[in-house]
Amino acid sequence: MKIVLIGSGNVATHLAKAFFTAGHSIEQIYSRDMNNAQQLASIVNAVPIVDLQSVSAVVDLYVISVKDDAIEEVTKYLPNLDGLVVHTAGSVSMDVLSRFLNYGVFYPFQTFTRESDVDFSQIPLLVESNSEMSTGKLHQLGRELSKTVIKASSEQRGALHISAVFACNFVNHMYRLSEDVLKTSGLPFELLHPLIHETANKVLHLSPSLTQTGPASRNDQQIIKKHLTELEGQEELRQIYEMLTASIVKHQIN
Amino acid sequence: MKIVLIGSGNVATHLAKAFFTAGHSIEQIYSRDMNNAQQLASIVNAVPIVDLQSVSAVVDLYVISVKDDAIEEVTKYLPNLDGLVVHTAGSVSMDVLSRFLNYGVFYPFQTFTRESDVDFSQIPLLVESNSEMSTGKLHQLGRELSKTVIKASSEQRGALHISAVFACNFVNHMYRLSEDVLKTSGLPFELLHPLIHETANKVLHLSPSLTQTGPASRNDQQIIKKHLTELEGQEELRQIYEMLTASIVKHQIN
Repeated sequence: MKIVLIGSGNVATHLAKAFFTAGHSIEQIYSRDMNNAQQLASIVNAVPIVDLQSVSAVVDLYVISVKDDAIEEVTKYLPNLDGLVVHTAGSVSMDVLSRFLNYGVFYPFQTFTRESDVDFSQIPLLVESNSEMSTGKLHQLGRELSKTVIKASSEQRGALHISAVFACNFVNHMYRLSEDVLKTSGLPFELLHPLIHETANKVLHLSPSLTQTGPASRNDQQIIKKHLTELEGQEELRQIYEMLTASIVKHQIN
Repeated sequence: MKIVLIGSGNVATHLAKAFFTAGHSIEQIYSRDMNNAQQLASIVNAVPIVDLQSVSAVVDLYVISVKDDAIEEVTKYLPNLDGLVVHTAGSVSMDVLSRFLNYGVFYPFQTFTRESDVDFSQIPLLVESNSEMSTGKLHQLGRELSKTVIKASSEQRGALHISAVFACNFVNHMYRLSEDVLKTSGLPFELLHPLIHETANKVLHLSPSLTQTGPASRNDQQIIKKHLTELEGQEELRQIYEMLTASIVKHQIN
């Protein structure tokens, strides 16, 4: 495939490298900043551009990989295009690209940092488009990069994003609160490392509905009361403890 | 050391094997159930007993490894002893053993399942006793089993238990809620596996205060509102989302 990449950030960089490695031809790299465009273009043997009007009209795929709130802006400045135009954002509807003939989404579901290399084969890709043929193309392209490619609607991507907030952002916050509790007691966070590792590992093999342990899962009111007493004076921790304990108890019963 | 083990459950079994492997002599294994006592005793070359009054008076260490709420009961039926008497429970005060001359706690901080073998060297041990000499003994014994041995008061063990509720039980519940969100949308939980793995791995190297990502950490009110709208009708998820988002925002500011 001949591809134009619009963007030079983390996702754009990893995608450009992955397309290039898979044998596709990256024709152009667009960035508002010529240095950024040149830097990435030199890696994947592409032409750097800074003007959206100068994108090639004869490529198969345009990949818009810019910040979520810049996608609409970019879309406005692009010329009419016959090729398939996709964005790579998890929480943006496909419809922002509806002015094009063929449009869709090609969403790698993982946080990237530009510096570290990524094993793309492990990263789930979610694809969507306005026609079965384009979806097929995106699916095939995805399979060249990743072992997991799933057709997902914009609503499904929205749900996935929310689920990731729970499984990643809120999980990290739990780690942070546990670090706070330990610090207050003069104990090192490292004590929790084996347990954190084990807790995450378990749900890679079993549903989390089967791996719940602890006082709430046993509805052990004696320990729960003891903990709430010990958390007195730390209102935020106490409220979170109470709410999540109640939620676990409820889920165990259901 | 000559050791008597009181109990034959998960923790008792793993401890007995670990002591035995480290070259200590397990003299007796007590269980209310003779079959259980015999089974474990045969593995570590000990004498099975079912009567607490018949524990040997001439060993160095008595390890009470029974259910939390059975410790006091066991303590009552034991004869007076000169050796060091410890329990292995995280959330029970050392003081329940105060009728003995030398007493303390030897707490392996990890959940065990009886079936799977355990790399004891990776399991943090928390020790405490009523004298410096006994604490020194427990520390030394601990170091033969684990690379991490920490002196911790009963209060510190209490804090550790609470921190584990956050880092393990509440984390698992976040996984479960994320699975619920995905199920409702017809997406497989497996999509989150790479992210779960990465999120847990990061905090094995960095403090969780440095690894927070997502809409709350950026205080991205547009996405937060979008998510809360999408969670309408799922009040429990919505309340948890709101509370934890507010907590993350507060922590990012501080």
